[in-house]
Amino acid sequence: MNGLPRSGDGSPEPSCVLLSGGVGGARMAAGLQEALPPGRLSVLGNTGDDFELLGLRVCPDLDTLLYTLAGRAHPDQGWGLQNETWQCMHALEELGAPCWFQLGDRDLATHLVRTEALKQGRSLTGVTADLARALGLKTRVLPMCDEAVGTRLRTREGLLDFQDYFVRRGQRDRVLEVEFAGIRQARATREVLEALAQAELVVLAPSNPFVSIAPILAVPGLGQALAQSAARKIAVSPIVGGRALKGPAAAMLESMGHEVSALGVARLYSGVVDEFVLDLEDEHLAPAVASLGMMPRVLPTVMSGPRERLALARALIRP
Amino acid sequence: MNGLPRSGDGSPEPSCVLLSGGVGGARMAAGLQEALPPGRLSVLGNTGDDFELLGLRVCPDLDTLLYTLAGRAHPDQGWGLQNETWQCMHALEELGAPCWFQLGDRDLATHLVRTEALKQGRSLTGVTADLARALGLKTRVLPMCDEAVGTRLRTREGLLDFQDYFVRRGQRDRVLEVEFAGIRQARATREVLEALAQAELVVLAPSNPFVSIAPILAVPGLGQALAQSAARKIAVSPIVGGRALKGPAAAMLESMGHEVSALGVARLYSGVVDEFVLDLEDEHLAPAVASLGMMPRVLPTVMSGPRERLALARALIRP
Repeated sequence: MNGLPRSGDGSPEPSCVLLSGGVGGARMAAGLQEALPPGRLSVLGNTGDDFELLGLRVCPDLDTLLYTLAGRAHPDQGWGLQNETWQCMHALEELGAPCWFQLGDRDLATHLVRTEALKQGRSLTGVTADLARALGLKTRVLPMCDEAVGTRLRTREGLLDFQDYFVRRGQRDRVLEVEFAGIRQARATREVLEALAQAELVVLAPSNPFVSIAPILAVPGLGQALAQSAARKIAVSPIVGGRALKGPAAAMLESMGHEVSALGVARLYSGVVDEFVLDLEDEHLAPAVASLGMMPRVLPTVMSGPRERLALARALIRP
Repeated sequence: MNGLPRSGDGSPEPSCVLLSGGVGGARMAAGLQEALPPGRLSVLGNTGDDFELLGLRVCPDLDTLLYTLAGRAHPDQGWGLQNETWQCMHALEELGAPCWFQLGDRDLATHLVRTEALKQGRSLTGVTADLARALGLKTRVLPMCDEAVGTRLRTREGLLDFQDYFVRRGQRDRVLEVEFAGIRQARATREVLEALAQAELVVLAPSNPFVSIAPILAVPGLGQALAQSAARKIAVSPIVGGRALKGPAAAMLESMGHEVSALGVARLYSGVVDEFVLDLEDEHLAPAVASLGMMPRVLPTVMSGPRERLALARALIRP
């Protein structure tokens, strides 16, 4: 017996699974990691944004999760590492290489190690665990699947790869539809299924519902395992006062014909979660959320700093 | 007509081909580049030292040539770039990646661009020309061949890959034999054959005869093209006063049963070149060199700085 409270032993802290995209989800992951005993959190990270750059496999959401959970993320921009340098990038520019995606010198090490391990036959789940261990994490970071899945956005300019839309073209295109290439060949991993089976609390982070949470739920076997789980299931709205805190979630709600509000998001998650967290600013939407069959919870959801994210995590954990 | 003297137009400066390994050869290349009109020099670089590290194709001799000819080489160590940083390397160490070979942040850009271009089907000759162009070079840097050739050293510890012997194990093993894996599948490239056909002067740099010059000469078709060339052919001794200026050339002469002197090197090149350059310190070996059928030339060969390498290059160019 060790002194840590464990799942099922009557301790108040539940085993928790977080479904997460990048920056916003990573902040919630950091809050939950701090609020829970070590090792009690598993984060299922979106890999639909992954892409290959100069032969390197880049996993933006997994990396943002790893760096944020390790306390190494850049404090302001959310992605990338603190104290990063850009010497390789400058040299790549001189050599005329494609430089629309920012590759920091220290960040490059992650991509090099991952790409090589995948080439040697290690799974993405395995190499992500290796990276998490090297960074000293107790939290498990699990890719949503090991197979390559590519989020693509239908726009008037045609079908765009996610990073093409998101970084290269600066999210300027109106998104008409989202698809996940390769998703039918994907399978929920043993690690993801185990985490969901053991979970007492599942949280859908305030990430983009269309391009961060939807691909995770679309992995064959994963949505079913979530549906069968006896855990409490909570989603946190990424829309506050009708605006996305970050990224194109509000624009996508509008362009795909949904109400641009926390209620519009709640409708997307109807039947998936039991509780829906609204920001204080959106308290007036609580009755409408309740009418969807979800318990509305009204909390301060804006994670402007470590204190706010910890307070939100503690509130989510409390039944 | 432009004002530059051109080959065959009666100008005193010949079209020149240099066979070269890394640091010492690169210094000679820089001297010849300065002594000749722009575009008159082609350097055939050894690729037997090439290897793969974290999925990247690293070509130490070609890179040393490119960086030195571009005036960007580290002034003291000879390899690598001046003002280099090592952030990626530090991060790789933290992640437990193999770090026995120093990968600088700016240097990494070269490996990334090359590896990706090769993957896309570009030849090593092609991508090396791209890199040379991006660095602003007029001198042509030609890999000895496009196929992968691996220098291996037979030692009491077994057969060692070149970088394993040279960097990881710090040249501590006694070399009994040298072989070039894959050499029979290699072919002299069109670019190398053209350079040799047009050359009026061919210089064998003061590089290691066993692991820098021998692999180049061993490429099928290349040695024959050199033999058939009407150019003046000169070798410069890498051994001065019985010692190698750099690297394990003296130790290899000894361990493979040759005389450890400039004369021992001259014997290796007998029948390959017409002239053999001895350092002032080895003037007494001139009669023995002459008896091998080569014209001995006695010159200051130690390239301690830009002035010395230019003076040596000018002396080589003069018939």
